[in-house]
Amino acid sequence: MQGTAEPAPRPAAYTPTDRTVPTRAPDRASYDEELVHAILDEGCVCHLGFVRDGAPVVLPTLYGRVGRRLYVHGSTGSRPLRAAGRTDPGLPVCLTVTHVDALVLARSAFHHSVNYRSVVVHGIARAVTDPEEKRAALDTLVDHVVPGRANDSRPANGKELAATAVLRLDLDEVSAKARTGGVNDDPEDLTLPHWAGVVPLRKGYDTPVPDARLSPGTQPPDYLAAP
Amino acid sequence: MQGTAEPAPRPAAYTPTDRTVPTRAPDRASYDEELVHAILDEGCVCHLGFVRDGAPVVLPTLYGRVGRRLYVHGSTGSRPLRAAGRTDPGLPVCLTVTHVDALVLARSAFHHSVNYRSVVVHGIARAVTDPEEKRAALDTLVDHVVPGRANDSRPANGKELAATAVLRLDLDEVSAKARTGGVNDDPEDLTLPHWAGVVPLRKGYDTPVPDARLSPGTQPPDYLAAP
Repeated sequence: MQGTAEPAPRPAAYTPTDRTVPTRAPDRASYDEELVHAILDEGCVCHLGFVRDGAPVVLPTLYGRVGRRLYVHGSTGSRPLRAAGRTDPGLPVCLTVTHVDALVLARSAFHHSVNYRSVVVHGIARAVTDPEEKRAALDTLVDHVVPGRANDSRPANGKELAATAVLRLDLDEVSAKARTGGVNDDPEDLTLPHWAGVVPLRKGYDTPVPDARLSPGTQPPDYLAAP
Repeated sequence: MQGTAEPAPRPAAYTPTDRTVPTRAPDRASYDEELVHAILDEGCVCHLGFVRDGAPVVLPTLYGRVGRRLYVHGSTGSRPLRAAGRTDPGLPVCLTVTHVDALVLARSAFHHSVNYRSVVVHGIARAVTDPEEKRAALDTLVDHVVPGRANDSRPANGKELAATAVLRLDLDEVSAKARTGGVNDDPEDLTLPHWAGVVPLRKGYDTPVPDARLSPGTQPPDYLAAP
């Protein structure tokens, strides 16, 4: 109706909880869905934490995202996968993804830092038993390594699916945290003679190395072209 | 004595324990001290896992190494740092460092992987209270960000030292794990038309961005020259 402004759509966000509100630098935390998903989608290796015999264990592992759900996979013989399949109602985990973007060199040792973006997910990992969900999850994992790759490889067969355990973790209790920008030296240090600034880390691929047994004439796919 | 060969010196190694012998791919695990230290020294951000209210927490944080000891630091107000200072005999942690070196694209979705090197440390983190050890630990943390940097920045003053909590974690129960090499496709998949190979990830620095308030004529230091 004329004269009635539509309220601006509020960006989708995750709900903060006691575990996802940091005690320190809360201004660096965000619950924005688009930001959380962008950070998750840029990587393929996460650090998965769980508790074994009362002590923490943190292992690097591949992951993929479908909507508000993450998947990790592993051998059916691996310890966290067995624990998640055995435990009702699942395995409490903390899954963390971190991108280090730059080193921040301040004039003072104290203000040295890194620019980074990270996502921390708390939740319960559960074994995926539905064959279709499992197959789709494995495609997602491959596409997280290289977007577009799942359609350009032989899909998993029944034996491979049976040998692979997949865990799902709903994105519910989740936050992003980031440091961006430049050097935060104290005013009285600005005249010190030390160089200060931001050193970006290199990103992306170097030249792909083809397998020696490629069929003659097989060209590198477009999705490996340098970004 | 003539005719008596000296036994070859055995390379220094960490002692495997139940927690550091993987159930899966044990051939990828190593306890070699030189390898463990090299993987640790190549990075500056680890993933630190601990248990809070019975659930796992995994946070990215800076670290440094001195001999067979690691240091992490944080605000004296941060939750893990407070927990470690409060708890006797310390905070059980799992500290993991991972370098992703390359993507491994197989003809089959199942054999997709990444080449990586990781170190997993289990142990008890304890607050550092000795001022000299704390100061040396902070220098180590800065030198882990950029080797040689601690000597080219203003050292922490008393107020900064007091605001910083440092935890130490002895390297005792520790292992390295790595995947290297090429594609592991099954023989019957070798004639498939999909490109397969290894895609190295770019490493190192891009061009440093100087702080806008640098004193005129301050040159970038040699230790930032591209490796």
